[in-house]
Amino acid sequence: MSDVEITFHPDGRRGRAPRESTILETARRLGVDISSVCGGRGRCGMCVVRVVAGEGAVSPVTEEERALINSGRLSDGHRLACSTAVLGDVVVEVPPESRRGRQKLQTEGLETDVPLDPAVVKLTVRVEAASISDSRSDEERTLKALADEGHSGLKLSLGSARRLPSALREGGWTITTTVIGGRVIDVEPGETQERIYGVAIDLGTTKLASYLLDLSDGVLLAAESTMNPQIPFGDDVISRITRTIEERDGLEELRGAVINGVNEMLDRLCERSGVRAEEVYEATVVGNTAMHHIFLGIPPGALARSPYAPVVSRPIDAGAGALGIEMNAGGNVHTLPVIAGFVGSDCIAGILATGVHKSRKVSFLIDVGTNTEIVVGNGEGLAACSCASGPAFEGAHIVHGMRAASGAIERLWIDRETLEAEYQTIDDAEPLGICGSGIVDALAEMLRTGIVDSAGRIGRDLGSPRIRAGHGGMEFVITETGESATGRDIVITQGDVMELLKAKAAMYSGASILMDTLGLSVDSVDTVYLAGAFGSYLDPGSARTIGMFPEFPLGRIRQVGNSAGTGARMALLSMEARMEAEQLRGKVKYVELASHPGFGREYARALFLPHIELDRFPVTVGKLRGESFRKAQGSR
Amino acid sequence: MSDVEITFHPDGRRGRAPRESTILETARRLGVDISSVCGGRGRCGMCVVRVVAGEGAVSPVTEEERALINSGRLSDGHRLACSTAVLGDVVVEVPPESRRGRQKLQTEGLETDVPLDPAVVKLTVRVEAASISDSRSDEERTLKALADEGHSGLKLSLGSARRLPSALREGGWTITTTVIGGRVIDVEPGETQERIYGVAIDLGTTKLASYLLDLSDGVLLAAESTMNPQIPFGDDVISRITRTIEERDGLEELRGAVINGVNEMLDRLCERSGVRAEEVYEATVVGNTAMHHIFLGIPPGALARSPYAPVVSRPIDAGAGALGIEMNAGGNVHTLPVIAGFVGSDCIAGILATGVHKSRKVSFLIDVGTNTEIVVGNGEGLAACSCASGPAFEGAHIVHGMRAASGAIERLWIDRETLEAEYQTIDDAEPLGICGSGIVDALAEMLRTGIVDSAGRIGRDLGSPRIRAGHGGMEFVITETGESATGRDIVITQGDVMELLKAKAAMYSGASILMDTLGLSVDSVDTVYLAGAFGSYLDPGSARTIGMFPEFPLGRIRQVGNSAGTGARMALLSMEARMEAEQLRGKVKYVELASHPGFGREYARALFLPHIELDRFPVTVGKLRGESFRKAQGSR
Repeated sequence: MSDVEITFHPDGRRGRAPRESTILETARRLGVDISSVCGGRGRCGMCVVRVVAGEGAVSPVTEEERALINSGRLSDGHRLACSTAVLGDVVVEVPPESRRGRQKLQTEGLETDVPLDPAVVKLTVRVEAASISDSRSDEERTLKALADEGHSGLKLSLGSARRLPSALREGGWTITTTVIGGRVIDVEPGETQERIYGVAIDLGTTKLASYLLDLSDGVLLAAESTMNPQIPFGDDVISRITRTIEERDGLEELRGAVINGVNEMLDRLCERSGVRAEEVYEATVVGNTAMHHIFLGIPPGALARSPYAPVVSRPIDAGAGALGIEMNAGGNVHTLPVIAGFVGSDCIAGILATGVHKSRKVSFLIDVGTNTEIVVGNGEGLAACSCASGPAFEGAHIVHGMRAASGAIERLWIDRETLEAEYQTIDDAEPLGICGSGIVDALAEMLRTGIVDSAGRIGRDLGSPRIRAGHGGMEFVITETGESATGRDIVITQGDVMELLKAKAAMYSGASILMDTLGLSVDSVDTVYLAGAFGSYLDPGSARTIGMFPEFPLGRIRQVGNSAGTGARMALLSMEARMEAEQLRGKVKYVELASHPGFGREYARALFLPHIELDRFPVTVGKLRGESFRKAQGSR
Repeated sequence: MSDVEITFHPDGRRGRAPRESTILETARRLGVDISSVCGGRGRCGMCVVRVVAGEGAVSPVTEEERALINSGRLSDGHRLACSTAVLGDVVVEVPPESRRGRQKLQTEGLETDVPLDPAVVKLTVRVEAASISDSRSDEERTLKALADEGHSGLKLSLGSARRLPSALREGGWTITTTVIGGRVIDVEPGETQERIYGVAIDLGTTKLASYLLDLSDGVLLAAESTMNPQIPFGDDVISRITRTIEERDGLEELRGAVINGVNEMLDRLCERSGVRAEEVYEATVVGNTAMHHIFLGIPPGALARSPYAPVVSRPIDAGAGALGIEMNAGGNVHTLPVIAGFVGSDCIAGILATGVHKSRKVSFLIDVGTNTEIVVGNGEGLAACSCASGPAFEGAHIVHGMRAASGAIERLWIDRETLEAEYQTIDDAEPLGICGSGIVDALAEMLRTGIVDSAGRIGRDLGSPRIRAGHGGMEFVITETGESATGRDIVITQGDVMELLKAKAAMYSGASILMDTLGLSVDSVDTVYLAGAFGSYLDPGSARTIGMFPEFPLGRIRQVGNSAGTGARMALLSMEARMEAEQLRGKVKYVELASHPGFGREYARALFLPHIELDRFPVTVGKLRGESFRKAQGSR
């Protein structure tokens, strides 16, 4: 089978590929940045590219492409990269909206105090030298010296046994041992007690975050984050799980990708902090259950099928060498426990970080993402659920949706009179699309100004050029003609509004059912923590206006950033926190929404703005009534 | 640098080598069998080869070669393979006496009973299926099922977690778990409780022995042995240790060689027994301390320098995967403890096998080899030492010495009248040389017939053509002209006798000092176990005649074969035996001969046949006096 040549514009990457391979496959191999949410299955329509030379040398347009790309653009050479096979040499242009760009990431979370009591410690000892009259083994005399200092019952790892003779002799019989869980995992000549580091890692579906800590004093030395290198294999958890089921080496491929990502971050963290990789002795890892399983090489297939049971839920300690993490080869990688198939260790870490489980007062913790995990309760009891909020808030399934990257509209206001939008983009770049926080603002503003009614319908007779009929129904035009980077108007369509309604209804009903489960009222909730990248950037007022969660007073809402990362750091610094995490696994009552008898009704009633029962949102409705709020006909 | 071509006769192997590389280096690389005791340092003279074409294309004869090869043979093209660099294409002949051949090995040892209580067990459990109302993790429900059967507190290894979901579903929620030390190391679908195997391994300097056992009933399924693939890197322990010090990758090279050897045996064991490698869950390993360290990748350098301290002495459990042993990747490799730098875990295994440590009566255990380990004592106390008996009994440093391979003279008798020798060779092949048991017989017979006197001097005026002057003094001719496979007469030289005296004196004085240490007399010793390949083949009467050990009644001597292998099998089958081994480590008093104040005198006095103090050997001397025994002039 002969090869063909593919060239990608605008970045100019070029490579050979087997005939009949898809454009997306080659792009992935060459590292060309093309979005894909569905994992290359022709469903999401995000991987649109344009064949600019060699138009005849590609496979015919498919049904899926006709459904997802309008005919004008199709005839202009636009195709789905995943559905187009290459039959001869071609040149392909990747338009800006199909690139993922570099996402706006946040890595700083809550700062909380934990007692400094890491699992890993260094002990320097002076060992008696061997002599004719005392030819005990190096091991024996080292363990004796440690026991004399009060550390008895230790064992040497094979790795430290291998290094022991040279360490003892180079150090003039003074060595520093690194001990974890009763095992000496490393030995070094001389006194190196101050050089002891650890890394806390948060494996998000979209991004990876990491924190290098000095374990001798608990100080944060550096933070790094990166896009999850698994994204080319599917943007969401389900498409990645599917890949592990359908592709023979899928799991190993995905595992390799995330391990590479972690290693790259580690390399940068060490470089920036003047720490050698071998001085990083422990890693704590959190993530949603699918990320957790894939990271460990555990098949996550069952997570995608009812009853969505995880394979493992307890904490795991594994060797860094065995996992391929480039830190001290004898170092320990500790994964925190998970609660359920869709409530992962990131959620447990979030609880640790916010202290929800210790407070006498009732708190909510909402970690917004494609799956939104919600925890509610206090020191006496906790319940958690996962809502399939979908990727709308990440910009997917929204016509002009995009990630929170440069050029994304992140804030938006609509003038009540002119219905014209003012907006703010990330990096003040030319608008390229609209990201999660902008989308929430848009919907709240459209509701406030009467562009949509409480059923989410865009009005037909509002007398403004900003509201117009589009391909798929009515749409609201955000940008003025020629204003956007793509040359096309950025709009919110009727279909987009419906996607958003489904997403927010899922979240609302999850929160509502958890409150019912614990018998709580809105008033009894003391604090609402909004966590995760999106949870930290959205405007809480807008979120409340559209009814994303029950109507908590705004003053009680705290945006806490990457609480999962903070929890991972706590578990790295403190055995006490690690123990709490292990207890939380059994303590948090998991509520499975899919099988909950009240869920269907609750969800259907939340598909309104802010809710079909307006008396659940008295403050919001009061404010809206002063504006141009349109209550849907037929809703009570 | 240009390459040259080397061809080896008689096996016809041919290969290219860098100019200036030695013949021995290339032979090793091509797998051509050439003896070398000193590790290629020009000292042992065992790697003699003959350059038969391209004589001008080799480096000049060295001092060492002049010392080790007589001038006639030198001029005939004989060279040391280790000292001869190749400068152009050559053809090299490897004479039979320079080949190691395949050694006569024995793998069967004592049969002893141990309670069947292996460290590894298989447990089949029925696990509750996951459902919407019970979405606990696979791990949780599996550990619950195990706890319900009375096995609580277990943990899953990462490997078993990875296989758990498919095992549960393929097995219809019935699985078999393999548990060792509180960890589930493997899971399989269905009921496989009967398929559980282990391997016991004895790492000898010269040979490797292995035994495959069914751990469900303790039955020995197969035994395999092979030459230690480290031999090309040096025949004795010291040359191998030296190699780990002097060569950058020496340790890894030697470790790789022994691991390969073990894996090849394992492969044959499994093949012969219809067992899959993944069904072998545990290995127990014994060996002398240097073999033990090298096997584990622990630098053995300190073993070659005073005070000869080992690096580790306690038992070690390491993952089969991490060590590269091709059994179940999650399986456990358990190395038994060692006592001292030159008293290894093979010695501890020998004690286990003979039960010396449990008996009320006093026993001796003598494991004869290049280093001879001697243990003496009973249930109340044990002492051990190592004697540098040297490689004479393995056939090295003896002019016509060879290993116990085909063609070796293994039994020998001398006619008192004619002084002619009758002998028996291994495989009844044409005589090629003389191996350990033949050497001991020869010396005993030479003493009995008056060919040597009690000082070891070969008589000059015995009036027999069998006693003649050779290159290095008098020599005794064993074979008649033209009888040997090499065409040369096989002789025992005066130098050989002196080597043997040193070897036996080392052993005798070790045993004698141990008896003194414990205050024992010859009469108080109930049983003497002779272990190891050589110890099992030699004639105990001959050994006693030359004074290799104190004059124990022959009826008390038991030849027990590979007691180290037997002990390894016991530790594999029984946790109790393993515990005993661990206790022995601290219980056996190690006596360092080199620093013992009485050693020098004792050794010097043992350099006679059977001993300078004839009253220590009343029975032997009585018998000899009826023959042609010549007491040396000047000795009392």
